[in-house]
Amino acid sequence: MAGAIAYISRDTDGMAWRKLFTDALGPLDFRTIAEGLGNPDDIEIALAWKPRPGLLRTFRNLKMIVSLGMGVDHLLADDQLPEGVPITRIMDEGLVGQMSEYAIFWTLWHHRDIAKYAASQRARRWKPEEFVDTLHRPVGVMGLGSIGQDTAVKLAMLGFPTMGWSRTAKALPGVETFHGRDSLPKFLSRCSILVNVLPLTRETRGLLDKKLFAALPKGAFVVNMGRGAQVVDDDLLAALDSGHLAGAALDVFNTEPLPAEHPYWLHPKVHMTPHMAGYTNPRTASPGVIENVKRLRAGQPLINTVDPKSGY
Amino acid sequence: MAGAIAYISRDTDGMAWRKLFTDALGPLDFRTIAEGLGNPDDIEIALAWKPRPGLLRTFRNLKMIVSLGMGVDHLLADDQLPEGVPITRIMDEGLVGQMSEYAIFWTLWHHRDIAKYAASQRARRWKPEEFVDTLHRPVGVMGLGSIGQDTAVKLAMLGFPTMGWSRTAKALPGVETFHGRDSLPKFLSRCSILVNVLPLTRETRGLLDKKLFAALPKGAFVVNMGRGAQVVDDDLLAALDSGHLAGAALDVFNTEPLPAEHPYWLHPKVHMTPHMAGYTNPRTASPGVIENVKRLRAGQPLINTVDPKSGY
Repeated sequence: MAGAIAYISRDTDGMAWRKLFTDALGPLDFRTIAEGLGNPDDIEIALAWKPRPGLLRTFRNLKMIVSLGMGVDHLLADDQLPEGVPITRIMDEGLVGQMSEYAIFWTLWHHRDIAKYAASQRARRWKPEEFVDTLHRPVGVMGLGSIGQDTAVKLAMLGFPTMGWSRTAKALPGVETFHGRDSLPKFLSRCSILVNVLPLTRETRGLLDKKLFAALPKGAFVVNMGRGAQVVDDDLLAALDSGHLAGAALDVFNTEPLPAEHPYWLHPKVHMTPHMAGYTNPRTASPGVIENVKRLRAGQPLINTVDPKSGY
Repeated sequence: MAGAIAYISRDTDGMAWRKLFTDALGPLDFRTIAEGLGNPDDIEIALAWKPRPGLLRTFRNLKMIVSLGMGVDHLLADDQLPEGVPITRIMDEGLVGQMSEYAIFWTLWHHRDIAKYAASQRARRWKPEEFVDTLHRPVGVMGLGSIGQDTAVKLAMLGFPTMGWSRTAKALPGVETFHGRDSLPKFLSRCSILVNVLPLTRETRGLLDKKLFAALPKGAFVVNMGRGAQVVDDDLLAALDSGHLAGAALDVFNTEPLPAEHPYWLHPKVHMTPHMAGYTNPRTASPGVIENVKRLRAGQPLINTVDPKSGY
């Protein structure tokens, strides 16, 4: 029998994955951290979300690491990651679609003045707000991997003038694209709504700082569904409090769960969600992982591999 | 010189329309109700939104009535409407897009549990809600005119299983369609979210009543961006209070502005907006109207005409 598959996540129990794997691959040795992983030498494949640093190194016969999220910063943060073991990540069209939903929801929230209407309702006040033509509400998406691409194309389809910014050049139908640090100020200067979905890397850590916020037009709205460590929280709070930014929707935080004393919780311009923008959906995420299990066992090249140097 | 154009609306001053008309047609006699309409015998064309009943009949040389909204119930409610004067309506892709935005926003509001997340934020509670696959969130759109079609196609593009219901048979890419009264219960039984955008006619007045709400699955969410008179308010409140419906987003009401004592204002499951789902956008609405002014003056057949019998 082939080696064991270890399911390592504290967020979900892995039962959906076990069923999908068994349905596709037949009987297998699928172990979960909740039930106990058994002898670490048995483990050939690790499906992991935020594993304890050093844990993966204890699997001496490990042949493949699978990130259960599309971001892999949770793995690369482990400085004892076993060398030479390929890292792959899920490519999950279900998760991608959910992330786009999140970006579209908060874009519409800002565009259609929902916060003002909710306040008017509480005051029993019938007060239409000033009409803004969708054509005059440009939206910028930072990060044009599969999530950013899907988000940008859908926003454009809804009629928003849509821009995308990425490290390397990308072309997208209906989306004006920018790339590289030099073009960032120009891109930012036109974003009435900024959606961040960059991967967390050395280059993007702390990127959303006072300089970036100052480069946005007055009244801009920020949606962060990338990683919390990309935001300098004090700079964001200052930009909100000065009135430069109209608001922010935040799904990710420097510390998760966000500590109860953090000013974001009760800030009137901050809309928080608990890292729920994109749930990994086993239905849509598993086919690519199952394909890689087959490839690994057949000695074929893996798909959806991660370059630890670029960080994605 | 050709006859005068009268702009009749208490919601907007008509200046945007005057400029677009002048840019397209050259100097013209464009009068507004705010500035005064002058001699009623001069008026050849009336652009109207909720005109006072009987007003249009006083224009004895009227040759065309243009509804400034896509719905024409505000005109047909006038039982002194001059006979034999053709009624046309705007076809406004800007308004259509805004209506779709509204439907998508509230669909995502319900689908992504935003009300629960907002409550958790106020309580400083980090609490992810149960994940619902978009594939398991069917949305139904009642009314498949240009607004309903655009709404349904965009919802389907976002991944929602999307159904449409209309009086007469329609076919739409990616949307399962139903038509006629007999199919209504089957359609409703599958809608986890119901979006109403039917025109107000004799047949649709009071259609959203206790029987319709009872036909929806428990936990359904209702979005009304059609007309207030299509909803039996007491039945909707009862369906919300019994727990059968999860919530409702209402843009239109039996009486507008909604009276301050109405229970909708402070109902925890009702999300109200003041008839703002689709603003008529002069940029996108005027070309079709200008085309009709040219056609009228050239003696050619008009476009976007309304059949007073069907009510749309």
